[in-house]
Order: sequence, then C-alpha cells, then structure tokens
Amino acid sequence: MKRSLLSISELGSDGVQRILDLADTMAEVSRRPNPKVPALRGKTVCSVFFEDSTRTRLSFETAAKRLSADTMTFAVSQSSLSKGESLRDTIETIAAMGVDAFVIRHSSTGAPWLVDGWTKASVVNAGDGWHAHPTQALLDMYTVRTALNRPEGFDGLRVAIVGDIKHSRVARSTTAAFKAMGAHVTWVAPTTLMPPVVDEAVTDRLDDVIGTDGEGVDILYMLRMQNERMTEALVPNLREYTNRFGLTPARAARLAPHTLVMHPGPVNRGVEIAVDLSELPGAVINQQVTNGISVRMAVLYDLLSANPDPTSDIEITEAVAAARTEQP
Amino acid sequence: MKRSLLSISELGSDGVQRILDLADTMAEVSRRPNPKVPALRGKTVCSVFFEDSTRTRLSFETAAKRLSADTMTFAVSQSSLSKGESLRDTIETIAAMGVDAFVIRHSSTGAPWLVDGWTKASVVNAGDGWHAHPTQALLDMYTVRTALNRPEGFDGLRVAIVGDIKHSRVARSTTAAFKAMGAHVTWVAPTTLMPPVVDEAVTDRLDDVIGTDGEGVDILYMLRMQNERMTEALVPNLREYTNRFGLTPARAARLAPHTLVMHPGPVNRGVEIAVDLSELPGAVINQQVTNGISVRMAVLYDLLSANPDPTSDIEITEAVAAARTEQP
Amino acid sequence: MKRSLLSISELGSDGVQRILDLADTMAEVSRRPNPKVPALRGKTVCSVFFEDSTRTRLSFETAAKRLSADTMTFAVSQSSLSKGESLRDTIETIAAMGVDAFVIRHSSTGAPWLVDGWTKASVVNAGDGWHAHPTQALLDMYTVRTALNRPEGFDGLRVAIVGDIKHSRVARSTTAAFKAMGAHVTWVAPTTLMPPVVDEAVTDRLDDVIGTDGEGVDILYMLRMQNERMTEALVPNLREYTNRFGLTPARAARLAPHTLVMHPGPVNRGVEIAVDLSELPGAVINQQVTNGISVRMAVLYDLLSANPDPTSDIEITEAVAAARTEQP
Repeated sequence: MKRSLLSISELGSDGVQRILDLADTMAEVSRRPNPKVPALRGKTVCSVFFEDSTRTRLSFETAAKRLSADTMTFAVSQSSLSKGESLRDTIETIAAMGVDAFVIRHSSTGAPWLVDGWTKASVVNAGDGWHAHPTQALLDMYTVRTALNRPEGFDGLRVAIVGDIKHSRVARSTTAAFKAMGAHVTWVAPTTLMPPVVDEAVTDRLDDVIGTDGEGVDILYMLRMQNERMTEALVPNLREYTNRFGLTPARAARLAPHTLVMHPGPVNRGVEIAVDLSELPGAVINQQVTNGISVRMAVLYDLLSANPDPTSDIEITEAVAAARTEQP
Repeated sequence: MKRSLLSISELGSDGVQRILDLADTMAEVSRRPNPKVPALRGKTVCSVFFEDSTRTRLSFETAAKRLSADTMTFAVSQSSLSKGESLRDTIETIAAMGVDAFVIRHSSTGAPWLVDGWTKASVVNAGDGWHAHPTQALLDMYTVRTALNRPEGFDGLRVAIVGDIKHSRVARSTTAAFKAMGAHVTWVAPTTLMPPVVDEAVTDRLDDVIGTDGEGVDILYMLRMQNERMTEALVPNLREYTNRFGLTPARAARLAPHTLVMHPGPVNRGVEIAVDLSELPGAVINQQVTNGISVRMAVLYDLLSANPDPTSDIEITEAVAAARTEQP
Repeated sequence: MKRSLLSISELGSDGVQRILDLADTMAEVSRRPNPKVPALRGKTVCSVFFEDSTRTRLSFETAAKRLSADTMTFAVSQSSLSKGESLRDTIETIAAMGVDAFVIRHSSTGAPWLVDGWTKASVVNAGDGWHAHPTQALLDMYTVRTALNRPEGFDGLRVAIVGDIKHSRVARSTTAAFKAMGAHVTWVAPTTLMPPVVDEAVTDRLDDVIGTDGEGVDILYMLRMQNERMTEALVPNLREYTNRFGLTPARAARLAPHTLVMHPGPVNRGVEIAVDLSELPGAVINQQVTNGISVRMAVLYDLLSANPDPTSDIEITEAVAAARTEQP
C-alpha cells in the first residue's frame, strides 16, 4: 500500500516525530566523508515542478541521490496547466515509465491530492498554491529540535511568524507543525496580509512580540516579502514594511541570546531582514537548508523503503557497510 | 564495428524479432523491486533533441539508467538548426567527449543518417521529420505481442491506423514494423491527410473498417490530431474530424472485445479518442509507455553491449546477481 | 584546508605540471572500455553557469561522473546577476546542501574569487569575463604535450595566438600556461582587438608569423571571431578579417607538417578557419575536446581527493580494481 506526504495534518504528530527521528539518522549519514547509502537503489524519484524553484528541486534531488535513488526532472511551464486533463496525462505517462515517487510543486491548492489519486506512486507535496509545504515545515522542526536540543517536543516554546501570512504556504504548514510539537504560535502581519479566518494569536505589533527584556519569543520566523505585494497595494512601501515588520538592528538587539531567527529563503535582504545575518548568533537559516537534505532523505526513505522498521539504525548501518565495501 | 538503429527497414524482420525477444528479458528486469542491472556501466548515452519531447527523452534516459549507463542531455533550440554545419560541429564535439550512443530527434528527414556518418558512436533515431520513429514502432510491436500473446508473429492480424498519416513518422515506422511481423495494415484518413504515394490499403471510412459484427479489426491505432492541421485548412474542424475519424462511444461499442486500442501519446482527448479510456478494455496506451522502457533498454543493450550473445538470459542473470550482491 | 583552481598564475608551473601528469593517468582511465573509477564517490560537484555554455558544462559533468561524483546543475539567467548579494545567497544556499566543489562561469571578472571566499567548497573557475579560463589552458597544454610528445616542457616552442585577444579569457589563460611551460608566445591581432597593455610579442601580420619556409611557428592557436565585433565596428567585415587573420588554404599550405592548429571551439567555419579541417594534418581541435575530459578529471581529483599522494598510479589502479569487481 503506497503512502504519500501531502500535509502536516495528515502526517499527524506521531508522523512528524517519526520523520524527525529518522532525520537524525540521515543527518549522521550526511556528515560522513561519503554521505551516500544504497537504501533506495533502484527506486526512481521524479520531480514535477509547475512553478520554478531550483532550490527546492535540488534539495529533493540531492536527498534522493544520497539514498542512491535515480532522479528524473519534469519541468513544466505554467502555460501547460491550463487544462486539468493534461496534468493527469502527464502524471499517468510518467508513472507508466516506472516512477516510485513524485515530488510535485503546483500553483493550485490541492493539486498534489489529485496527483495522489491518479497514481500508485507515492506523492510528496513540495508546495501547492498558498496552501501547504510540509517538507519545509519538517525541516524547520528539525532545525529547532537540534538547535535547541529539544528531541522530546516543543512544549512551552513561543514562536512568532512574521510577514505575509496570507499568501504563505510555509506559514500554514510550519504553524501546523509547531502546534503538533506543542509550541505556541503568534502570527504577526499587517491586516492586509493576514488571512480572513484565523485560529492563531494574531497581532500587527512586532515590537510587543519581541518585548524589551529578552524574554519575548524563542523563535522569530521571518517570511519573504514579495515585491508584488507592493504592486497589489497590500503594503504601502518596503521602507514602511521594514520599519514595522522587519528585523532591524534595534529589534535584533532586544532578542534574547537563545532566540532562533529562521527564514524559508531566499531572504529579501534589507526588507524583512535588515541586519547582517553573520552578526546574529541565533540565525539558523543556512542550517535550515542543510537540514532540508536530511529531512527530505527521511521523507523519501519513510515512503519508499520496504524495510519494516524504517527508523532502525541497524538497517542504515548495514547499508553503509555495503556502501563502504564498494569503495576502495 | 558500430551499429545504429535508424529505421525499421534497415533493422529488418530478424532484427525486429531479436529486439522483441531481448525486450522480454528487459521487461523481466523492469518488474523486479530493483530494476537496475550493470549491463552498460561505463557507457554514456547522449540525447540530442532538436525538437522538444520530454516524454521520449525521459523514456530513453530511464532505459539507459536501468542499464547503469550514464546519460547526457543536449537540448537544442530550433534556431540552431539553420546551419547544417553547426549540427556536425555539435555532434563531433560531443562525440570527442567519449559518447557511446547518440539518441537524436530532429525535424529534418534523414538527419540521423547524417549524424551516423559523422561519428563512431551508435545512433538511435528518436524521430526525424515525418519520416521515421523506429523505437516507437518496436514498442508498439512489443505491446501487441504481449497483449495478444503472439510471440511467433502477427500473421493474419488486421490493423487500422487512423488519422493524420501524411505528417506522421509514427504511422510510417509502425506500418513497416507491422508488415515485417506479418500483419495486414489499412490506413484510414481524410484525403487531405493521406500521403500522395501509398503502398497500403487506404480508406476514408472508419466505420467500414471497424465493421458492425465485432469482426472488423484486431488493432485500432489512433494518431494524434494536431491543432495546426485546422490552421492549415487540412481538416474543416475538430468536431467534424471526430465524427468521421474519432473513436466515439458508438464506434467503441462495436469493437470486438479482443481489439486493442493504441495511441503513441499524448492523446488529444475528445478529438481522436472521444471515449473514456478507462472503460475501454482493449486500450493499451499506458502499456505502450511502460513497454517503451523495456524496448529502449533492449535497443541500447543490442547496440552497446560487447557480449557476443546479447539475447542470452544468462548474461542478464549474472549481471543481476552482481547487482544484488552490491545491495545490502 | 580546501583548495581551488582560479587561475594559471595561482596554480603555478609546478601545479600545471602536477595536473598534466595526473591527466596522463586519467587519459589511461578514459581509454578503458569502462572509463569510470570510484575515486570521488560521495562527492558532489555543482555547476553554476551564469553564461550558457553546454559544451564546457557537459565536459565538467562528464569528468565528474567518470570519477563517480554526483553532479548538480544550477543554470542562472543573466538577469539574476544584477545584485551581487543574490550571487552570494545562491552560493551559500547550495553550499549548505553539501556541495564539495563549485564549477563557476560568470560574465564578471573576479566572480570565482568572490565565490571562493564565501564557501568552504573548492571552486573551479570555468571562465570569468574576459579574464581567465584555466581549465581550457590546461587542456591546451595537455594536448600539446601529448601531440608533440613533450612531457618535460615546451622550451623553445613558438606559439602564435591569433584573433580577438582583447576579449578572450582563453588567450589570457593559455598564454600564461604556455609561458609557464617555457614556450614563446606571439599575439596576432588587429590593433582594435589587442589589449591596451601587453607583455607579449605582438604583431598584426599573420603571414610574417607563419613564414614561408615551414619554420614559422610550432603552434597556431586560432580564436573564435564573434559576430558582435562587427556590430561594434572593431572589425570592418568578416571577409577582410579572414583575408588578414584567417587560416586560409594559402596559409595552411605554408605551415610546417609538425605545426599544430588549435582552437577553443566552437569554430566559426569560413571565418577564422577557412580551410577543411580534415585536410589539415596538424589540426588537434577534437583532441582538445577529448583531452578536456581527462584534464578536468585531473583537476577535480586534485582538488577533492583525500588521497595524500594524488598522482600515484596505485590509488587509481586500486580504485579501478574495485570498479571492476563491481562489474559482472
């Protein structure tokens, strides 16, 4: 029976924990001089990206290659989406070539669920519209877990997600994951960039959230400000946005030393982050990228490995032993 | 001495049979949990596509990877074809890097023969102009052979190829292959889409070919109707085309249960096939795609393997044994 | 401590010699039926090309694959260069995914040095602006060394580099390498295409350089004439250019039999080379392409192998032995 990773809510708390535990094993693999294991040799992972994102695609393909899977890339121009039928034909044709997992990014909410219904292959949602981006949420959780050494969960952790919540699939998935881990999430955004229906604590006052005594938040998660929000008149101008919602030197100075600063990338420097990241001890943005490989290895392994106990260290160790004997 | 696969007529009946037998072995490999064998390890296959076709390119590259060959892709925009000299320079330069086989698609009839004369590498014609597409024909033959369980040949089989014969390299190559296998082929097309010189039985009456008693044809091979034929005024409009040459529900109801419905893909739904494919028991369109991998593995193996007896099961079995001992 | 290959001057004479010796070993590997060795298994080489060059990119990626490294391609449109910051973000993000070497081509002089300062990965300059292209220079040296059987150096060799010196990174790097090997270099160009400050012997009279007695030069290195030089009015017209600076049949007839004719490719036929290359016994242009693979294998191995004695045949032999036992 095939399984897919479509959203954090379908994965559930136990699923999140299982992936993070497995990511520990994969991170250990990734630190080796030869970070490849033959765990998924003979499997084929196909990236189908209807929105261009070289970063995310390379992250998934690097993860697949470290597990010795083969990779295929099917990059599709936005114009090909006009007919829903053609998406189905594309998926069915590639599936018929013998693909084990699709990694799909699509500008329409729900597209990965459609794909999941059309194929016996596993499907990983790599971002659908404004809706969900579960592997980003998982790599964020893994980054917090390792940076703060909190393998048991995030009870009591205070998280602020700042910026264009309304149009952000990252905000939605990462919020769901933080809550599944036990953290408390506050959304910080101008009213124009806040979703109409909201379950979270919300505010438009970033300074209140950061506080003045270094006790405000444990995690400051900054979202990318897209220039098109200006065009759409949802934000007056970038300078004003930075003044109210950016991480300025004044705000950085008031963060507690243990506060993590996160961002899904790429950073719009001088806008949402207007401070030199190298002088911010809590910035873990590059670690997010590094952890993305281990977490996506864990996701692909979890979905595709026939091993009945996928979290077992032993399996990985045997695989590594085999890989090592292959080498001179 | 290098060999190439340029057309069905140069391959000959014995060659077709040899590839189909070898494809059986490759299909067995493809059904394994790990469908990779090291048969072509160290060989490099370069796709040179002067016309965009992600499907065909991925099929060849998947086949090459299953045989553990390395793949290179050289995608060329149509504009680069203006000078014949530049095609030669491109081929000679890539050949000098150490390529063992070129897989070439080109909008000009005969281009693969030119390429074949310029390089010591093997050349596979992946479609040249309206002229030939031999691996499509071979995968079609393999699909019929397995679906109808006719390993000995197609004597007595009645085939109708329906649609834009004039502009179709698929029609030409697949007809040649069906005839080499002993089948009888009828071309069904409006006069405007029929080639000027014809060796086959021809008609513009699809209903006559299908018949009314389930005894009309054994194989109904539908071609894709390109929208540009309307622009060129070769077809009055799509509705009229479907009425006369499409597989409508009424026609589908009159097919014998054993009749295979084939299509080279991608299907122009509602035009040449105006019936739900999932309700058509004889439709083998996805099997054509799946078989395409095994047949292209057979072609590449046939051309590149140094093994004196390429159809020997033993060689493949040894290779597989080696692949298995590599794995944990 | 990571090392990079940024320019011939930083590599130095000893470094050039070390790479050429190692290239001998790699060329031996490349001539085998299976030209792959597991020497860099587990390493990842990422091509980051801000200028399109399929030839150079494929050459590096083929070299990396022969050493069993994984490859990633990050192709960037020219537009993304507008902000220096975005280059840094791109490099840091890819580096965080675990890349061992960047192969970078950029239209700005010095870009690879910036990249080298931003990452712990090795950096190979695959061409920066008009400035440097060291692997081209190394493959040129290796081609001369093998064609003339001069492993000890090029003392006394007379080289003419002909054409658009001013805009040519190839001319600059290859000149530096020839001088490091002990050869004497003359630059031949119209005044408009000569750099303003020059250390070399210069002339605008190609006929004088070639001479009349077959004793003129040992190596005639022709550069590509870009059509845009006409647009910029730096050259009156192509016919005039060919008359004065092209390799015409009359000039070819006056070359000594041992004179090598070289070109970095792609040749602008009928312009800088207006003679049939197949009738020119000293033309080694395809050998340059072939040697490019071995030289780039040598460069990547030199930078990335942990082996303390990278020039040792034994290491390669062991690696090859391992590769062979993997095969059936």
